[in-house]
Amino acid sequence: MTSRMSELFGVEVPILLAPMAGAGSSALAIAVARGGGLGALPCAMLSHEQIRAEVRAFRAAVRRPLNLNFFCHAPPAADAERERKWRERLAPYYAELGIDPAAAAPVPSRAPFDAALCALVEELRPEVVSFHFGLPAADRLARVKATGAKVLASATTVAEAVWLERAGCDAIVAQGAEAGGHRGTFLDGDVATQVGTMALVPQVVDAVRVPVIAAGGIGDARGLAAAFALGASAVQLGTAYLFCPEATISPVYREALRRAGPTAVTNVFTGRPARGFVNRLVREVGPISDRAPPFPLAGGAVAPLRQADPANFGPLWSGQAAALGRELPAEELTRRLAEEAFARMASARAGG
Amino acid sequence: MTSRMSELFGVEVPILLAPMAGAGSSALAIAVARGGGLGALPCAMLSHEQIRAEVRAFRAAVRRPLNLNFFCHAPPAADAERERKWRERLAPYYAELGIDPAAAAPVPSRAPFDAALCALVEELRPEVVSFHFGLPAADRLARVKATGAKVLASATTVAEAVWLERAGCDAIVAQGAEAGGHRGTFLDGDVATQVGTMALVPQVVDAVRVPVIAAGGIGDARGLAAAFALGASAVQLGTAYLFCPEATISPVYREALRRAGPTAVTNVFTGRPARGFVNRLVREVGPISDRAPPFPLAGGAVAPLRQADPANFGPLWSGQAAALGRELPAEELTRRLAEEAFARMASARAGG
Repeated sequence: MTSRMSELFGVEVPILLAPMAGAGSSALAIAVARGGGLGALPCAMLSHEQIRAEVRAFRAAVRRPLNLNFFCHAPPAADAERERKWRERLAPYYAELGIDPAAAAPVPSRAPFDAALCALVEELRPEVVSFHFGLPAADRLARVKATGAKVLASATTVAEAVWLERAGCDAIVAQGAEAGGHRGTFLDGDVATQVGTMALVPQVVDAVRVPVIAAGGIGDARGLAAAFALGASAVQLGTAYLFCPEATISPVYREALRRAGPTAVTNVFTGRPARGFVNRLVREVGPISDRAPPFPLAGGAVAPLRQADPANFGPLWSGQAAALGRELPAEELTRRLAEEAFARMASARAGG
Repeated sequence: MTSRMSELFGVEVPILLAPMAGAGSSALAIAVARGGGLGALPCAMLSHEQIRAEVRAFRAAVRRPLNLNFFCHAPPAADAERERKWRERLAPYYAELGIDPAAAAPVPSRAPFDAALCALVEELRPEVVSFHFGLPAADRLARVKATGAKVLASATTVAEAVWLERAGCDAIVAQGAEAGGHRGTFLDGDVATQVGTMALVPQVVDAVRVPVIAAGGIGDARGLAAAFALGASAVQLGTAYLFCPEATISPVYREALRRAGPTAVTNVFTGRPARGFVNRLVREVGPISDRAPPFPLAGGAVAPLRQADPANFGPLWSGQAAALGRELPAEELTRRLAEEAFARMASARAGG
């Protein structure tokens, strides 16, 4: 499996850093790349200038492949009545925290992959471009592929994986229900039927010919070895890397990761289902609220609450294996995970 | 891992047949035992005479260990108002199917493990006794253990696993969210925070000293190898055995398994969360309804609907890996799964 990944992406070890908007930066991507894995830069919350600066920082530090990640959601139309109902639901928390409900909340910035970002990809020429929430339109995808970039996207069902392969993806991330952060779902958004990694990966492997990258609930070398046993060619890790010093997360968030409490898939922070620790907003308003405006608009009215009290009202994205996290520098973590996984597979043979 | 299981249960291969009330019978248990695995008889829906007859049939056919499985729920008190509201919710379906809403529904029979069943265990002396929904009271558990039986129970969280080990379980089934049928949950019933097999198994392995048996989403040899990589000493398979000719299931149910559509965890059929295929009752009344009376009472009012139209209104329990099912006799399936898993582990070693 290592050779299939190294052929496709030019990496030494079959580990991909999950792009994590807000928590991942060039420092984390550089460290993972130095460890032999595929570094990623989440671009959805960055300006063009920030993206250029992050790519420059990565290129200056390492000569390794880089994955630029973008969102492919359709930005929703504004709807004053829907927004009013959502603010009404959150009003008691505004009152409790002493926040003026009339204060304008910042509009959440989650840029979808548009013509300008496509031009930026053509300018920056990353070796890998990955998409979440589906893919861009065919002509735009063709422009990305014409740069020579390999294209990756996330599937949460077999149907999504087949769709992505037909659309031209070079590899597919099979994102199991255990995964932290936003579900990549784009064909069928039913939260109740999300499939776990153990069941999803072999079904996706059977359904497509391109390499499959397992994601969701993989916290240590045991998870890596398990993913390879299921037929995955590589793994994508997010939560495991949040424990690294390079992750740009708040002390509150880091503390929540260390506690590793229960997680749930919730739409209360952004309007799209995403897995994170159960805190007060999730418990009292969610986990799924039919009042939450569509992605990313729900985040607007939540922003002042989140700023005032991030532990109770902010998103604390995490997968279900946070308890397995180790606080190591990302380069060392990457190398150790790969070494331990291969050692584990060797000893399983000897013991079997 | 094989040796740890063979020491504990006297089996040849580290595969346990999941006890499936309604679908599992002595024929299935005998076939799995002949294949070298641990056969199980689900007793919750059987009379004492039926249990005796099933054990006799098993003993007459094979000299292998047998697992008798019981439920440990606290039977709820009747509540006429709650029952009225549930019937009111289902009334449109009664009308549509032409069923008299005044017709008395049969009271669903799901016997908890009581003094009489404990005496039956002392009489029948199974090698293994397994419990779902927790454990019986300490004195009753002590009587079971005094027979020499090894005791197994299901955990859906790390906390439940630790609780079960402290209470004296000899091994623990770590039941991931992918699993079909009833969640074994007994400490925290939050459906939103259920943990997938990939994340649950290594965390349970780290938390207890007794052997851990992985369950949930394991559909073929890839899943077996993955479970062993995660640290499990054995696997427990349910859905995979429903494809065998020995499973006592209806043609409607078998057809649903072959289609392998989406599944959800629902409480509409029995009052307890259980995973099954999404059919009309799940879609329209569930998947989780706060009107459903507690287990097993919700099943009473559903019974006439289920009888009239099992495809739309009956429980079609399944885990998330039904698409991996193979229609083989259970003895052959058991042997093949073990052989293929060990071959897979050997080739992973060679390729790594």
